[in-house]
Amino acid sequence: MPVVLAASVEHASVFLSLFIILAAAKVMAEVFERLRQPAVVGEILAGVVIGPSLLGWVHPSDLISVLAEVGVIFLLFNVGLETKPQDIFRVGMRAFAVAVLGVILPFIAGYLIAIWWDGSFVEAMFIGAALVATSVGITARVLGSMSLLDLETSRIILGAAVIDDILGLIILSMVSSLSGGSVDYFGLAKTAGLAVLFTVFVAVVGAKLMTRIAPRINGLRIGQPFFNLGLILCLGLSFAAMYVGVAAIIGAFLAGMALAEATEGNQKMHRMTSGVTEFLVPFFLVNIGMQLDLHVFGEASVVVLAILTTVIAVITKFIGCGLGAWGMSRRDMAQIGVGMVPRGEVGIVVAQIGLGLGAIKPHFFATVLFMAVATTLIAPPFIKIFFAEDKDKDGKPDEFEEHDISDEFARLG
Amino acid sequence: MPVVLAASVEHASVFLSLFIILAAAKVMAEVFERLRQPAVVGEILAGVVIGPSLLGWVHPSDLISVLAEVGVIFLLFNVGLETKPQDIFRVGMRAFAVAVLGVILPFIAGYLIAIWWDGSFVEAMFIGAALVATSVGITARVLGSMSLLDLETSRIILGAAVIDDILGLIILSMVSSLSGGSVDYFGLAKTAGLAVLFTVFVAVVGAKLMTRIAPRINGLRIGQPFFNLGLILCLGLSFAAMYVGVAAIIGAFLAGMALAEATEGNQKMHRMTSGVTEFLVPFFLVNIGMQLDLHVFGEASVVVLAILTTVIAVITKFIGCGLGAWGMSRRDMAQIGVGMVPRGEVGIVVAQIGLGLGAIKPHFFATVLFMAVATTLIAPPFIKIFFAEDKDKDGKPDEFEEHDISDEFARLG
Repeated sequence: MPVVLAASVEHASVFLSLFIILAAAKVMAEVFERLRQPAVVGEILAGVVIGPSLLGWVHPSDLISVLAEVGVIFLLFNVGLETKPQDIFRVGMRAFAVAVLGVILPFIAGYLIAIWWDGSFVEAMFIGAALVATSVGITARVLGSMSLLDLETSRIILGAAVIDDILGLIILSMVSSLSGGSVDYFGLAKTAGLAVLFTVFVAVVGAKLMTRIAPRINGLRIGQPFFNLGLILCLGLSFAAMYVGVAAIIGAFLAGMALAEATEGNQKMHRMTSGVTEFLVPFFLVNIGMQLDLHVFGEASVVVLAILTTVIAVITKFIGCGLGAWGMSRRDMAQIGVGMVPRGEVGIVVAQIGLGLGAIKPHFFATVLFMAVATTLIAPPFIKIFFAEDKDKDGKPDEFEEHDISDEFARLG
Repeated sequence: MPVVLAASVEHASVFLSLFIILAAAKVMAEVFERLRQPAVVGEILAGVVIGPSLLGWVHPSDLISVLAEVGVIFLLFNVGLETKPQDIFRVGMRAFAVAVLGVILPFIAGYLIAIWWDGSFVEAMFIGAALVATSVGITARVLGSMSLLDLETSRIILGAAVIDDILGLIILSMVSSLSGGSVDYFGLAKTAGLAVLFTVFVAVVGAKLMTRIAPRINGLRIGQPFFNLGLILCLGLSFAAMYVGVAAIIGAFLAGMALAEATEGNQKMHRMTSGVTEFLVPFFLVNIGMQLDLHVFGEASVVVLAILTTVIAVITKFIGCGLGAWGMSRRDMAQIGVGMVPRGEVGIVVAQIGLGLGAIKPHFFATVLFMAVATTLIAPPFIKIFFAEDKDKDGKPDEFEEHDISDEFARLG
């Protein structure tokens, strides 16, 4: 009797964590929607509240971080499904300029702050690297919920995020090998080349291949063939992306993009995918919030450094990416700039690698963590404001999703 | 450089496992559909093939077993969504008779085989208990894919499975405390009472509550309010069910049933839920297959015991549950009997508890494992055959899901 209960209670605790995370995220999302603030901010704050910093109801774990990663992968897969390759190719040069300037400025600024504070050369290189990588998940989530993913500026942001990730990979690899004393330029070039090849190959060949085999997919006897193909492609390319060294979300985004044309108008498949996304994205957002350990900020000097770094991270990314879009209207430049601000989990990963190598000191780690979460919290309200007019132009009301459901009720119920 | 790669490759291995499991399951499902065999059988066999027994590409892990459990929970939640409480209440007495007879016969038979072979008293009680609990997930999956969940016999199976689980809990608790030397009858009664109360309360009050608050849910500002409420309710009641001691899937089924009326005709919500199910159920099925360690069956005597136990497990459940439906047509009795045959993961859990308590010897553990997987593999083809006519009556072709998608293409694309 006690054994049976012990076994089921132990298992039950996992489900209790999942339940708490999901419920807290959705309640905070609802609260923030009512305050006319972005739901993502509410969900990240839910993580801060229920995580170790405050209530301690849930703690970061391997399981939650895997669910979080699967969540953000499906989020980007979903975004990819609404993005045709030519949409990105058309804005390719501009996206490249946005990515490059949005990498150089934050890197230099991060390096300089760290040196000026009390950092070593390697430490400063790490802080610079941590300020580089944009985490496009947050922006994609906000733009997706406003259904503005088909704007030109949205596409430039998505394209720049892909390129930005490859540049970030190269810088991180370089910085990591610096901490070992020497840089393996050959290995570096190989990884970078592989990453570029993978991205270009999937983007160019993937969509054509999928569009060509679409009729065959439709002829499969398995239920929901497109959805199942999507799942397999999404996980497979996420793994392949990780394997060549870029972020898994790049692979997932490319998988979605490859299927964008073949599944256009396949509402059933899109809804099934968005079901997975809606279920798992809260774990991604709450997990970001849980990373923030408020106890580190007992010392006033750390707080100053963290805030300063965050401000610099926001400004340099905003200006760098905005300048990359030179020639477009000021509003477009501002949209692109703000869309690239969130660093999210990518900055955290860079800091963790630095800490693991013994290359950065705890106060710099805390600083990067704060910067990553803070930029992710700061950006969404500005994204909402800067993109607000385009939304009105679309004529889609704020609560279009609910209206969508009501429509269905009217039609089907 | 090496560190970065090591970090991403380590993480990548998790995604590689997920990819392999999903791809293998879907490929085998397609192969079995083409052979006109149930897809579930293919997916379980995929687990045997890629698991430690044969290829060894993936191994059971905590992560996979959590994904598996979340998968079967959503499966039962989905089934619940298509089952209104009165559908179950109407068949309540019959379901009770089916459950009770379907518990008594296999228990006695299991006890007798074990005693006759070389088992101790406690050991034989464990084998009896392991033969008791039906795992309704497999049957629900097969009937759901044939869209026959609204048949009277399907409802009796679902109702009997809920009651069966509570009876199984009581027997398992009793047997477990036996191995400790004494039975705590008071604790036992308390657990059983709590389980019954929980089930009845949610079934009776849940649906009324949800139907009443449905208009308010529709007024929430969060996107997809019904889907999100469903997620929270599903995880919450799964946890609550585990906490009172019944299987999590009972809680999930009740959560779905509570929402069945409020979300009737809400196709969007149903599709989003089925997206989660389609994604995660392969992990449940593959995980069952992975449990089977073929190496244990090197000794001929174990093979004999395993096959004998499986045959007895199938026959006693089939006859017991069939007799419970006395008064219905022979076909109905056969449908109900065969629908209750799969033991799946429930039998495995019982055996694991017995092994953990040191109460059963390895060859009995191997036997129960074999019986659990084998009954799960044997039942689906018979379910398909016994229910085939009802399906034809519905006029729904075998591949209705694909036709459904093609219809949508025609309409939307």
